[in-house]
Amino acid sequence: MSPAEPKKSGADGEGAVPKAVVNRLSLYLRELQHLLTEGSATTSSGQLGRKLGFTDAQVRKDLAYFGQFGYPGVGYRCDELIEAIRTILGTNRHWPVAMVGIGNLGRALLGYKGFSHQGFQIVAGFDTDPKKIGTTIEGVEIFALEQLADIVRERHVKMGMIAVPAPAAQKVADQLVAAKVVGIVNFAPMTIVLPDHVSHVGVDLAIELEQIAFAVVNREGER
Amino acid sequence: MSPAEPKKSGADGEGAVPKAVVNRLSLYLRELQHLLTEGSATTSSGQLGRKLGFTDAQVRKDLAYFGQFGYPGVGYRCDELIEAIRTILGTNRHWPVAMVGIGNLGRALLGYKGFSHQGFQIVAGFDTDPKKIGTTIEGVEIFALEQLADIVRERHVKMGMIAVPAPAAQKVADQLVAAKVVGIVNFAPMTIVLPDHVSHVGVDLAIELEQIAFAVVNREGER
Repeated sequence: MSPAEPKKSGADGEGAVPKAVVNRLSLYLRELQHLLTEGSATTSSGQLGRKLGFTDAQVRKDLAYFGQFGYPGVGYRCDELIEAIRTILGTNRHWPVAMVGIGNLGRALLGYKGFSHQGFQIVAGFDTDPKKIGTTIEGVEIFALEQLADIVRERHVKMGMIAVPAPAAQKVADQLVAAKVVGIVNFAPMTIVLPDHVSHVGVDLAIELEQIAFAVVNREGER
Repeated sequence: MSPAEPKKSGADGEGAVPKAVVNRLSLYLRELQHLLTEGSATTSSGQLGRKLGFTDAQVRKDLAYFGQFGYPGVGYRCDELIEAIRTILGTNRHWPVAMVGIGNLGRALLGYKGFSHQGFQIVAGFDTDPKKIGTTIEGVEIFALEQLADIVRERHVKMGMIAVPAPAAQKVADQLVAAKVVGIVNFAPMTIVLPDHVSHVGVDLAIELEQIAFAVVNREGER
């Protein structure tokens, strides 16, 4: 996960919501979407928590940050709570996203079904390789990096994803900021530094493996 | 991140270490590796924390879970602290990993440089596509899914990564467990259920975008 936490409180002075709570909202949203797909119209904090390994009290406390949901004796209506969480997260609208770096990882991200399902649409890809520029990959047009500012403006891009080699990550991030992108997800294994008004998160895929290694070593005592 | 947290405490009865602390160890390790690469032999809790957005007190408190590091007036020796953290995480040894699902994402993960750098080596890939079986992709041999148990045993695989389509994820996870894999990282956008003795973490790439959306919406009040 990220060294740089997204800002927690609204500019309107609302209280801060812990990052972990916002993270769990995403997990609740996934479970609610699964439940609805499986035909469940309603659920409870107990059921919702159980599959995710949280207590029912935790679920209720997390949701209470954002208002009053659910009905006595009924629980939560899945469709209503999905809509409410998407409104809280801001994913009830369309987010045009730019993808910078169309190597193996970038290409995989272009084809990742999970993004569009949650309201994110990759509307342009960028690379420096002349063989890729001008092509369409996974339905996404690939442009030269020099065209970034123009395309971001034309296509109302608000977020960028970076999947370039580590040494190029900071420069690409700076270009995205100059193009007025306000959120960045960095998949390059490299910490990037950005101005305060740009939210960003770094995704280092090896960290997940390290966390599992720690769990395995400490459980089995097989050091 | 994960709905299912890795077990926190050792079988030897050592106190529980919060998951967030273990996560930050991974971040400290990255920064120390960068510092060493850039030629810094020593660092301080202040310097280490600054780049990651944590206080120096936080860094010291996190490390204190695992022992006494650093020298008065000198700070931390980067190489020593790297070795210490890798020993704590269990990544000071070689972890053979199996990759199941060689679509776009699986292929990108096979080529991801960040894994081997941290001690993880993908030693076999598995797919159901006859066109992929028997080939070598990014230096990794691809086998039929039916060969999973045999190859896992022969190559001493301890961890598996899953990058198959969501509907196939649970079945593949069960096969990995049956093959005696003890840790799983699931990239399929689907919650999987596993026995308690298997550590696992789910990686849903859209969650990072959602967290950024929340930060952007709540900062700008542009709901």
